[in-house]
Amino acid sequence: MSTDVSVKRVFNFSAGPAALPLSVLQEIQRDMIALPGVGASILEISHRSSAFVEIIEDARNRLVNLLGIPDTHEVVFMQGGARLQNAMIPANFLTSKDETADYVVTGNWGKNSAAEVPFYGVLNKAFDGAEGSFTRLPEAADLQFSDNAGYIHFTSNETIHGLQFKQAPANGDVPLVCDASSDFLSRPVNISEYGMIYACAQKNAGTAGVTVCIISKELLERCGDRNPSYLDYAKVAAKDSMLNTPPTFSIYVTGLVCKWLQEEVGGLEAIEKMNSDKARLLYDVVDESGGFYVVHAANPEHRSVMNVVFKMATPELDRKFLDEAAAENLTTLGGHRSIGGIRASIYNAMPREGVEALAGFMKDFAAANG
Amino acid sequence: MSTDVSVKRVFNFSAGPAALPLSVLQEIQRDMIALPGVGASILEISHRSSAFVEIIEDARNRLVNLLGIPDTHEVVFMQGGARLQNAMIPANFLTSKDETADYVVTGNWGKNSAAEVPFYGVLNKAFDGAEGSFTRLPEAADLQFSDNAGYIHFTSNETIHGLQFKQAPANGDVPLVCDASSDFLSRPVNISEYGMIYACAQKNAGTAGVTVCIISKELLERCGDRNPSYLDYAKVAAKDSMLNTPPTFSIYVTGLVCKWLQEEVGGLEAIEKMNSDKARLLYDVVDESGGFYVVHAANPEHRSVMNVVFKMATPELDRKFLDEAAAENLTTLGGHRSIGGIRASIYNAMPREGVEALAGFMKDFAAANG
Repeated sequence: MSTDVSVKRVFNFSAGPAALPLSVLQEIQRDMIALPGVGASILEISHRSSAFVEIIEDARNRLVNLLGIPDTHEVVFMQGGARLQNAMIPANFLTSKDETADYVVTGNWGKNSAAEVPFYGVLNKAFDGAEGSFTRLPEAADLQFSDNAGYIHFTSNETIHGLQFKQAPANGDVPLVCDASSDFLSRPVNISEYGMIYACAQKNAGTAGVTVCIISKELLERCGDRNPSYLDYAKVAAKDSMLNTPPTFSIYVTGLVCKWLQEEVGGLEAIEKMNSDKARLLYDVVDESGGFYVVHAANPEHRSVMNVVFKMATPELDRKFLDEAAAENLTTLGGHRSIGGIRASIYNAMPREGVEALAGFMKDFAAANG
Repeated sequence: MSTDVSVKRVFNFSAGPAALPLSVLQEIQRDMIALPGVGASILEISHRSSAFVEIIEDARNRLVNLLGIPDTHEVVFMQGGARLQNAMIPANFLTSKDETADYVVTGNWGKNSAAEVPFYGVLNKAFDGAEGSFTRLPEAADLQFSDNAGYIHFTSNETIHGLQFKQAPANGDVPLVCDASSDFLSRPVNISEYGMIYACAQKNAGTAGVTVCIISKELLERCGDRNPSYLDYAKVAAKDSMLNTPPTFSIYVTGLVCKWLQEEVGGLEAIEKMNSDKARLLYDVVDESGGFYVVHAANPEHRSVMNVVFKMATPELDRKFLDEAAAENLTTLGGHRSIGGIRASIYNAMPREGVEALAGFMKDFAAANG
């Protein structure tokens, strides 16, 4: 079968769903009518078929290998996005009314996560960055943990405000639960330090429709029998994510993205270096612009490697920037509607040449309008 | 771009995920690298982009047109399969402890649906076919409805046991909630008679990852504010199914399947006739086999048009049947592990020639082994 890749493609800086590696798209396209040796499309095969069982096990094994996931943790594929996890986490991990859930809120996504807790238990905002318009991460002294926390929740990277933790906000051995939706698989991570890490796939790990949850067996024991089947992590984990029909195609794409990371990129240390280099290209232009571009994050240490968020002096300039960028095939650069400005999401699959093109455009734009 | 359709394809009788129309697979393949005029794949575009908003609105409009959905009802695209709906239905529609939920249980799927009710309220099994090994649907006199039912739930087609309602088991104006996962879009339906109809897409309406929910505004008003955001139908409906990132690709596929139904098949009356004709081909072979093939449904009136479930005198014969059928590219014909035997799922996308091939094989097999 031949695939035509001369189709015009833009540099897509979408915050998510976001760009995928071209080689992954090509493999999906090649096998869309029938998987090799199967005679039916990935969209048509039973989740109980040996062909699909091989696909989901392959995706799981590749995640285990890439992240070095230890035997103490299970990989569970869920639907419903991070949003459903936000409800399931307190529903499953708060076991009594005497426990609180400590949330470190550094942006909109953390705020949304915290908002689901009161349906199930007691919320303590250990830090609330809303008071500073989400321009900074907490210092150790800012964190007001409770004495009886069942877990600590934080968002490793906030896409809207462009803030990213380099180190988790821990408190002794209270289990850490991390929404890593927007920097999962962008760098190595020590899974042992976490009770749970979860990530919707549509940034770095595939396409929308599946959320990867890595959960410690210790936390799985807390699930009890308090929730309906699909809303109980232990019940879904016990069935190897096949309690019901899983999102077969999205899991297939996640497997292909992991294969790309392993075989074409060379693993998470390699992608981390590539991502840091890409981010530096853009932040350097900002820092050398003499104040023409202003980053949302107040402290350079807190800047996200995934989402470079900045603005210019006026909304009119931002608008002009977006229009002229789009004319050069640099698309989806608008900031989130809640804060405006510019947001360049440069996840794993954004090639360096896309970032170089944007950096060049930014220099020219600053020179012409500064 | 050229697509090669000479790839070997089998006749896939999977109960779900199930066969898709070849023309749908070809369109997905053609546009996988970049949607026309967009420059990025359907897997990569933001759900907030105008390109995707057009796709989700198109899918919704096609469903409205095909089914004649009135203004009194909303179309909501959810994740988590029918299994998550089973939890959300009592969570949203039981508003007080004085209400019961009446469940008409005619197979495994109805049993699973009923099992989630006690997490939220009082369950009344108005009929429980388990006592008769799910070989029949209830007569009117069998139905033990309660006086204070918040809603009645039933499963229009049970895939494992091959039983299908021709008419809903109603009780005055108590809202009817129907799990139509396995016969949705296979025939016309009067939506006005239902409080809610829901269907996971992977049988007749697309691929795994999206569940279509058609809900009356009257039922939506019952949701209150008792559930977290993603688990509250009213909150998701208020955001046009974009409370968070929806399963973009699966919704795109559902839209393409609806387009196929409209433009290539000619609507739901046309597909109903095609489906009846296909089912008759197989049931005729069974009825003319002199008892060699025995249908699970005791009453011919209850036989499913979607899943033809039967067995032979011994499990060894069933096994031989499956092996010899597979050798003729008639695949995935094994009955569900809970009852064994043979199951031919002949959803919308199974072409008549596949059913003719199976009917021919069945005749030959009976002649050789009868």
